[in-house]
Amino acid sequence: MVEGGKSVLEVLSSGFEVIELYATESFYQLNEGIFRSSHAQVEIATESQLTQASSLQTNNAALAIVKIPSGEFVAPADDKFSLVLDDVRDPGNLGTIIRIADWYGIESIYCSHETTDAFAPKVVQACMGSLTRVKVFYADLTGLLRDVELPVYAAVLDGKNIYEERFGKPGLLLMGNESRGVSPQLRALVTHAITIPAFGGAESLNVAVATAVVCDNMKRSQR
Amino acid sequence: MVEGGKSVLEVLSSGFEVIELYATESFYQLNEGIFRSSHAQVEIATESQLTQASSLQTNNAALAIVKIPSGEFVAPADDKFSLVLDDVRDPGNLGTIIRIADWYGIESIYCSHETTDAFAPKVVQACMGSLTRVKVFYADLTGLLRDVELPVYAAVLDGKNIYEERFGKPGLLLMGNESRGVSPQLRALVTHAITIPAFGGAESLNVAVATAVVCDNMKRSQR
Repeated sequence: MVEGGKSVLEVLSSGFEVIELYATESFYQLNEGIFRSSHAQVEIATESQLTQASSLQTNNAALAIVKIPSGEFVAPADDKFSLVLDDVRDPGNLGTIIRIADWYGIESIYCSHETTDAFAPKVVQACMGSLTRVKVFYADLTGLLRDVELPVYAAVLDGKNIYEERFGKPGLLLMGNESRGVSPQLRALVTHAITIPAFGGAESLNVAVATAVVCDNMKRSQR
Repeated sequence: MVEGGKSVLEVLSSGFEVIELYATESFYQLNEGIFRSSHAQVEIATESQLTQASSLQTNNAALAIVKIPSGEFVAPADDKFSLVLDDVRDPGNLGTIIRIADWYGIESIYCSHETTDAFAPKVVQACMGSLTRVKVFYADLTGLLRDVELPVYAAVLDGKNIYEERFGKPGLLLMGNESRGVSPQLRALVTHAITIPAFGGAESLNVAVATAVVCDNMKRSQR
């Protein structure tokens, strides 16, 4: 389920298969061109009908039911950075991470099977259309990291200062669970343990926030 | 209201005035030293009582009612960076920003009167004890920015690439509203407009995420 005007328009412009599509009269008229060119059948609904069907507090625009892409597994590219998420549980965090990946041009995210479902409404809502550009795969991460011949960078609390890391060769950026961090069996497969330096009293950063800082340092180092 | 074991322990170790304090028998026994040295009166409660009173899904540890500090206004320091928030509305975002400030050693946050209440339970929960170290002030930001003789850095979409900004002199880091960004009247008072470069298709970053990236670039540039 994709909710809200901006996200629905992004889905209509993507290659995703739209199964059901609802819009208010006014939103439809404002965006008639995009609706028509998508060839999806639109049903006009009132704002209160949309809001009732939606998990948003109010929805005065549109709602779509979209077929979840088959997501056939593609191994990590060796000329691009990919994200790897070890057991990220919070839907808001996962959605924010997908949007961060999209901002920093990361095209693939590999999630452990314990990571929350990327197609749950709360995730779709938090990532604001970025799921149309970022591919999310679920995999056994131990096997993935063991089989891959790429650097495995991981954000941990006792690694090398990230400001000193050059990110010379593309590889995987591994982020751990909200409370436990990277699991010991994956930690053993990490080639570059990195740490965001702390300057104050907080003990940790939110995992989505840390992901953004890691991606930003990676891009900044690669200029 | 401060909820959960970790946050309550941080409050007990801070200078905050605790008005009411509840803990489960087992959590109290585990942390008896901290409870005793705080001189606050503890009432033992069951896990189900705590959970009922709490906004958390479960609370098997502790809950405290704490006096909101008077928060007498202190002007921004001229030898340290401070954060300025123009109308940040989401409690989760504000809590995350307070925690980010605490991570990067920023001691003061100046919020517009429209910014959400820093002492609302959802904010307190998201910032995980950082409110005991970071001071949050509410002020008329137009007056604040006009009267201050400090650089005003602001995250906008059409500023200087943040990777090129040296952050040579401490000043204010201004972040805007979740959907509208920095308001035009404050934008006119900005001396250093900066932008986080985008590499993919996302149109924006979450405001808390952007705050972390700005703080990180500031600290990295100042090494």
